[in-house]
Amino acid sequence: MTKVPGFTRNLWGSVVDMHVYEIDAYWRAANYLSVGQIYLLDNPLLAEPLRPEHVKPRLLGHWGTTPGLNFCFAHLNRVIVERDQDMIYIAGPGHGGPAAVAHAWLEGTYSELYPDVPRDAEGMRRLFRQFSFPGGVPSHVAPETPGSIHEGGELGYSLAHAYGAAFDNPDLVVACVIGDGEAETGPLAASWHSNKFLDPARDGIVLPILHLNGYKIANPTVLARIPEQELIKLLEGYGYRPHLVSGDDPALVHRAMMATLDTVFDQIAEVKSGSGGRLPMIVLRTPKGWTGPHEVDGLLVEGTWRAHQVPLSRVREDPVHLAMLEDWMRSYRPEELFDSDGRPTPPVTSAAPRGTRRMSANPHANGGELLQPLVLPDFRAYAVHVKAPATEWSEPTRVLGGFLRDVIEANPVNFRLMGPDETASNRLQAVFETTDRAWNSRILPTDEHLAPGGRVMEVLSEHLCQGWLEGYLLTGRHGLFNCYEAFIHIVDAMFNQHAKWLESARRIPWRRPIASLNYLLSSHVWRQDHNGFSHQDPGFLDIVVNKKASVVRVYLPPDTNTLLSTVDHCLRSRDYVNVVVSGKQPVLDLFSMREAIAHCTRGVGILPWASTDEGREPDAVLACAGDVPTLETLAAAAILREHLPDLAVRVVNVVDLMRLQPPTEHPHGMSDAEFDTLFTTDKPIIFNFHGYPWLIHRLTYRRNGHDNLHVRGYKEEGTTTTPFDMAMLNDIDRFHLVMDVIDRVPHLAARAAHLRQRMADERLRCRAYTREHGEDPATIRDWAWPY
Amino acid sequence: MTKVPGFTRNLWGSVVDMHVYEIDAYWRAANYLSVGQIYLLDNPLLAEPLRPEHVKPRLLGHWGTTPGLNFCFAHLNRVIVERDQDMIYIAGPGHGGPAAVAHAWLEGTYSELYPDVPRDAEGMRRLFRQFSFPGGVPSHVAPETPGSIHEGGELGYSLAHAYGAAFDNPDLVVACVIGDGEAETGPLAASWHSNKFLDPARDGIVLPILHLNGYKIANPTVLARIPEQELIKLLEGYGYRPHLVSGDDPALVHRAMMATLDTVFDQIAEVKSGSGGRLPMIVLRTPKGWTGPHEVDGLLVEGTWRAHQVPLSRVREDPVHLAMLEDWMRSYRPEELFDSDGRPTPPVTSAAPRGTRRMSANPHANGGELLQPLVLPDFRAYAVHVKAPATEWSEPTRVLGGFLRDVIEANPVNFRLMGPDETASNRLQAVFETTDRAWNSRILPTDEHLAPGGRVMEVLSEHLCQGWLEGYLLTGRHGLFNCYEAFIHIVDAMFNQHAKWLESARRIPWRRPIASLNYLLSSHVWRQDHNGFSHQDPGFLDIVVNKKASVVRVYLPPDTNTLLSTVDHCLRSRDYVNVVVSGKQPVLDLFSMREAIAHCTRGVGILPWASTDEGREPDAVLACAGDVPTLETLAAAAILREHLPDLAVRVVNVVDLMRLQPPTEHPHGMSDAEFDTLFTTDKPIIFNFHGYPWLIHRLTYRRNGHDNLHVRGYKEEGTTTTPFDMAMLNDIDRFHLVMDVIDRVPHLAARAAHLRQRMADERLRCRAYTREHGEDPATIRDWAWPY
Repeated sequence: MTKVPGFTRNLWGSVVDMHVYEIDAYWRAANYLSVGQIYLLDNPLLAEPLRPEHVKPRLLGHWGTTPGLNFCFAHLNRVIVERDQDMIYIAGPGHGGPAAVAHAWLEGTYSELYPDVPRDAEGMRRLFRQFSFPGGVPSHVAPETPGSIHEGGELGYSLAHAYGAAFDNPDLVVACVIGDGEAETGPLAASWHSNKFLDPARDGIVLPILHLNGYKIANPTVLARIPEQELIKLLEGYGYRPHLVSGDDPALVHRAMMATLDTVFDQIAEVKSGSGGRLPMIVLRTPKGWTGPHEVDGLLVEGTWRAHQVPLSRVREDPVHLAMLEDWMRSYRPEELFDSDGRPTPPVTSAAPRGTRRMSANPHANGGELLQPLVLPDFRAYAVHVKAPATEWSEPTRVLGGFLRDVIEANPVNFRLMGPDETASNRLQAVFETTDRAWNSRILPTDEHLAPGGRVMEVLSEHLCQGWLEGYLLTGRHGLFNCYEAFIHIVDAMFNQHAKWLESARRIPWRRPIASLNYLLSSHVWRQDHNGFSHQDPGFLDIVVNKKASVVRVYLPPDTNTLLSTVDHCLRSRDYVNVVVSGKQPVLDLFSMREAIAHCTRGVGILPWASTDEGREPDAVLACAGDVPTLETLAAAAILREHLPDLAVRVVNVVDLMRLQPPTEHPHGMSDAEFDTLFTTDKPIIFNFHGYPWLIHRLTYRRNGHDNLHVRGYKEEGTTTTPFDMAMLNDIDRFHLVMDVIDRVPHLAARAAHLRQRMADERLRCRAYTREHGEDPATIRDWAWPY
Repeated sequence: MTKVPGFTRNLWGSVVDMHVYEIDAYWRAANYLSVGQIYLLDNPLLAEPLRPEHVKPRLLGHWGTTPGLNFCFAHLNRVIVERDQDMIYIAGPGHGGPAAVAHAWLEGTYSELYPDVPRDAEGMRRLFRQFSFPGGVPSHVAPETPGSIHEGGELGYSLAHAYGAAFDNPDLVVACVIGDGEAETGPLAASWHSNKFLDPARDGIVLPILHLNGYKIANPTVLARIPEQELIKLLEGYGYRPHLVSGDDPALVHRAMMATLDTVFDQIAEVKSGSGGRLPMIVLRTPKGWTGPHEVDGLLVEGTWRAHQVPLSRVREDPVHLAMLEDWMRSYRPEELFDSDGRPTPPVTSAAPRGTRRMSANPHANGGELLQPLVLPDFRAYAVHVKAPATEWSEPTRVLGGFLRDVIEANPVNFRLMGPDETASNRLQAVFETTDRAWNSRILPTDEHLAPGGRVMEVLSEHLCQGWLEGYLLTGRHGLFNCYEAFIHIVDAMFNQHAKWLESARRIPWRRPIASLNYLLSSHVWRQDHNGFSHQDPGFLDIVVNKKASVVRVYLPPDTNTLLSTVDHCLRSRDYVNVVVSGKQPVLDLFSMREAIAHCTRGVGILPWASTDEGREPDAVLACAGDVPTLETLAAAAILREHLPDLAVRVVNVVDLMRLQPPTEHPHGMSDAEFDTLFTTDKPIIFNFHGYPWLIHRLTYRRNGHDNLHVRGYKEEGTTTTPFDMAMLNDIDRFHLVMDVIDRVPHLAARAAHLRQRMADERLRCRAYTREHGEDPATIRDWAWPY
């Protein structure tokens, strides 16, 4: 214990505890820097009295949560140093961006990554100025923020991200501050139970710190207002050992937090050593906007919702506010914390972690630094043998399961397969030949494939699957999320945020590329005929293509070998979101593996064996994307071949949907010349599409042939019925496609009137058969090339 | 107590309890009917030995949850009769569709609504056949199912729906069965805390019945595997009094459930009378697939995940399975339950509720029957006075707040305003002049506008806002959900499911129209410049327009008076989802109220005062939709008017986005003639759009002028910066629009080269100013018509 010169207020009673003093100094420094970021353009060290022109004209930022975030940073730093603990920090209340930035600057990381913002007075001035400023940095914790894997804008995902980061990182502790606002969200509420999927031996530890500052934007929070006994039961019910730290007197709360953290990390060590006990968590109850202005214009601010954003709003206009701001900033005693050159003083920095132990510089928070390529078996070894196209059937996802099994086998600690209890339903069950489902709760003798450390994560929450996977990828690992197509909409918002993260991260030089987020959407709209209307929605693709072309990829492999080739490609890619749509039901094998690779490489191509335009300009183009639409297209081509043998029909299949866009819109986009060659500029194109039809129009509206393009797709018709009835309900069936061709090829209508009528009759016959027998006619079910 | 002839097995020990017998008979009947629906085409009463041809070729349905759902139905019926209780039933595990259908048929409701399915042997045959059959009924609880307000396909929303149904229905009990699979979802996990927003005096009561049958599709469930003490703590932590009912011996479980329900409803009565105690809930722990085949092909089925769907899958092919099915069905002793004509016998029906007390016929579950139109104040009274267009500013949502305040005042028990803690942030705070935020937890002296029974529901969960509102609307009330635009994506999936409900319900004659689900999306992409990239996403519109034109409407009122007119219209509408996008920041007042009504009625129109094409064919059309894009368009028009006075520019504003579609696609769609008249067929159209630009292409790609259409919109560029910098980042700013016109009007480029350069310079100047001063130049901020 050393008495610190200048530490005159003696906040801590009779014994001056060096640790507490240093923690408090760090905290005050971070708070000072946070307020400075929100308010100041200049005069960062308050070297002269504050004047209006030192203050930003637009005051943007969230003060309310910031002192709590800084408090946790400061205290966790001590633990890191004392225990040489590998730790990262997730700020659930990421609106408090100034906190994370202040922390990174104090630790020196900020200046290492952004040399134009050095750790001195001029750097501090720039640090303040740039925050929420045009050309500067965002107001929330963002990809730009060192040490973060979590954007703090859309709330609800912090704890899922934390667990994702902890999986397979046995030495890591992920400290996760959860705001009591965020705690009201569904995804966060579900995330508490992630502890049933974490194996303390194989995985790292998540330390949730539930920060009850009492208010969200304008309301009290639920968890801050329920009786404390109820709160404790709730957290114990979630399976944690809660520890409470409360107060508003820094001296007391510092001591309580130190003692609690010592206990908590001792308990973590016990659990890590196999005690089997529950993992600890902390409830930190401190005022919102703690240490900020207590009352402003006669209204209570500190400790209320009024501290949420900018407590003093008229600083440039109102001399009273200006003086209050100066008092507020000086209350942190900056002269103790920064030397005259603006550099943090020893009390602030001496106890801070060094090197990669700094949470702002921990490589887990810049996962690309740790990323190891997957060891991938040769996907060609899993190919189905194709003697002749479209004559035999296989189940794409079942075959893919064999490949994924061996991917898991070859990558035992850096690949996970996520799914909302649908891995077997999606027919990937071969993976269970080599691994189990992660499960750290009770296991019964009748259970199958449940074990701690299993590589398959199944929980009935798309939010958790997505959040875990994001956390896992952002810390430098790999994975795939398999999901029913319709229900992937549950994570639309999370996809949006992850795509935005990638869009931003790609522009940040020090953010290293991470593995792509891979979706396998199966049990799709055309084969959810048994579950019905609620399970039929292919609209996720429409959401995906709203995001920047630099990060999104959409694949619709039509058969088993193309699926294998596609997934192999996706698993090797970086910094993308790859969406692969593939059914689990048997499909006709169309491509040998050699052809499949060529087709997937091109992304789009003519199926010569299904076409009748050899060497001729086609009379019509039958285009297709998606397995079921491709099957119907092939059947239509076969009918046309049989009944109108002189008609020149070209069949084009699209695997890589982004190929349809102009190259100016997407890097995969084909040139107009290529497009024209494939699709013609003046012939009718009947495009049979897996999803909502307008997506194809949206991708192609600038193409020469667009006026001749007629798209069939899902038009929101469905119920529990047979697969072919589903196709007919939406007019994507073979018979309707033939009718479309007849209607659109000039001069064909009269000549083919008889065939057209027959097609209409076939539709009626099929419907009648279905309603009589409850299944599709065998001629439909078992159809193979040719007709 | 009467001894029942034929009740020979004496399941119930020495005392034959008539109640238990009747409940058990009802349960067996419902189970029998459920199995029959899954399996049988014919021979419904097993009048002859079961043959393969009696069995459906496609076996579809979810048996696992069904006996539990039936069990709850049977027991709740007793309570309804004994206490004359108004009650509806929400089946969270709605995959168990056969249960709800069986119930409705046993109660007679089914035959009343579907006379072709009478309550006799032939009706039973049709009932069985139609289930999951082409032309029949869906396999899940669906709009087609009498007594339901909850589609059971996408899991997670049952408890939120239940609370929504209970609000402002003081005499109602909403029994809500929650599957332990569903309980893992985020939305459900958040929903438990809905009790903090329910006032037992003013509202009805929700009785959650957490059904732990132990498994989801292929995995155990979390809540079934945690220690019972932990489960109890969790539920107590959520603020409930849990009661446990467990077992697999029907005789014992019947008795336990009866006793528990008596206790539970006594406790409900106590709380209703003001005791202030916690509300009860039930944990029912019974085997999955209870009473079904115990073992099949040597594998345990009953009580495991293997009972999830169809326990016997090869009934047509395998005589052993066929015999097992017959044994299974006969185990319910159908001869006791149905007479030879197939009518339910007195033991089944005698104790069942009658009339509207039947849960399948309760009018709350067909809310349109109870719907009362809102008492709406004259929205014109709230108009801002517009002396001249585009010269003064007002805040649209702030003005709307006054209207909503009076809507709330005039409709004290059937209108609620939902928002994820954003009502004041969205500037609707005038509502707090007449009401409060609903809050049934602790209230502190410093709180403002919190009270039990408040009409504003604020919780930081878009899922809860949406789920509560859906439940509220489906039971015949009205409401509006105000939300930050970007975060409405959180409920994309819920919107999808509600839209699908409406799409289906519109085709069901007995489903009466309900109030529309109204979204007010504020704090939108163009004015989330302060929060940054994560808060910028206008893509919800792309999701919305995927749904059927019969149920979706999208409005982008450009100013205050058009917002008032739009919202009034939406509040009067039925069976739609209305999406209204409107900023909260000041906008220029463009329309007097008279003009606003005319403009909104047309949905699209020329702004003559901003146009320079009087009587002439325009050289260019400047189209716009959305408040900020409209402002920029007007500024561009002003610049063109000043600098190129001879250029004929037409300014067209679109309020009702669906007007852009062809009338064949949407009932609001305008004819090609109208479109051509407004937009011309051959002149450049620069369309400045609020959202992602391709949506406009998607809506207009068949229009004559489409090749000349150039759309500006959000192209996924953003950060924390100034509003005008946001516009410039995405090229929707006034200067860029002028450049677009110059680039696209033939022969203008040379003549206007100077102006074009000046525009480019202005952009650079603005950016430089912004980066220097941190705010937009005053000339931009304060611009009003003319330039």
